[in-house]
Amino acid sequence: VLAATLEELTVGGFTALTIDNVARRAAVHKTSLYRNWKDRASLVAEALAENVAGGVPIPDTGSIETDLREYARSLIGWLTSPVGRAVLAATISDAARAEPEIVEIEQRFYFDRLRRAEPMVTRAIARGELPSNTDPNAVIKTVLAPIYLRLLITAEPVDDATADQAARVALAAARAGALGSG
Amino acid sequence: VLAATLEELTVGGFTALTIDNVARRAAVHKTSLYRNWKDRASLVAEALAENVAGGVPIPDTGSIETDLREYARSLIGWLTSPVGRAVLAATISDAARAEPEIVEIEQRFYFDRLRRAEPMVTRAIARGELPSNTDPNAVIKTVLAPIYLRLLITAEPVDDATADQAARVALAAARAGALGSG
Repeated sequence: VLAATLEELTVGGFTALTIDNVARRAAVHKTSLYRNWKDRASLVAEALAENVAGGVPIPDTGSIETDLREYARSLIGWLTSPVGRAVLAATISDAARAEPEIVEIEQRFYFDRLRRAEPMVTRAIARGELPSNTDPNAVIKTVLAPIYLRLLITAEPVDDATADQAARVALAAARAGALGSG
Repeated sequence: VLAATLEELTVGGFTALTIDNVARRAAVHKTSLYRNWKDRASLVAEALAENVAGGVPIPDTGSIETDLREYARSLIGWLTSPVGRAVLAATISDAARAEPEIVEIEQRFYFDRLRRAEPMVTRAIARGELPSNTDPNAVIKTVLAPIYLRLLITAEPVDDATADQAARVALAAARAGALGSG
């Protein structure tokens, strides 16, 4: 069912996705979907969370430099995959931005992803690799920002070099205390 | 005429903008517009360039820290102005992304803006504030990235604190040599 949800998403986008279509594609009765997911939003949220968790694992190599680089590389891999592209297109599409339900799925998705990535930074602080007042959320967002800038604004290619540069910048800023809280 | 172009842009967006509408709004004959601008794209490009040049001056205070902070603050002011919002909406709108002419106006606009901001960094290198191999384009993009991330992805507020943080991160990364070329 989750796979069918992602297929519907990549084919028609968020706006066209319905429980009925997902049930048809998964060849199950829609009542069994409603038993497990209270609405379309919960179904999409779970399918996306599972997909991105598989595609973008949170590394724990013992080095913040390696962790951030691997994280940025797998994130780029996911953002340029069919599901990642569909999510990104939905995030910025006029139709999706006009639907509060979709905006809420996306916000929850992005904030959940950020929260799950934060332990890379808290572990680095515990190891003494980063200043103790480093804001984990700010570090992760500093890794993400140049990747989204390229994908959405400058339309420049994103590749491993983009990932490595994003990780390097976030790390340098964090080490210099520019990503501290308070 | 340029003011009328921006009004058309903020009211109806890129896709609805025509030379005829601009001529009507400016109360001039459209043949006089065609005499000065060979097409809609040139007219919009000039109107935008003039508007953003006025709204986002390139500072030259003698300190890269102050320059980047002032630049980021005025950029946020512009991006949240009616014209800035219209440009950003057009950049990511489905309709605009489907029109190669609009994509080209935007690409030229963004790259021209980046190019014009680079002297802040080259002057800082000349003053010895930044490593000599610092890539000016990469520094400016590092200032822009978190601002666009908030506007387009996380939908968090953008304000002076966002600007100051963006400038601080770019500066720390540049000083640490993380934004060097080659």
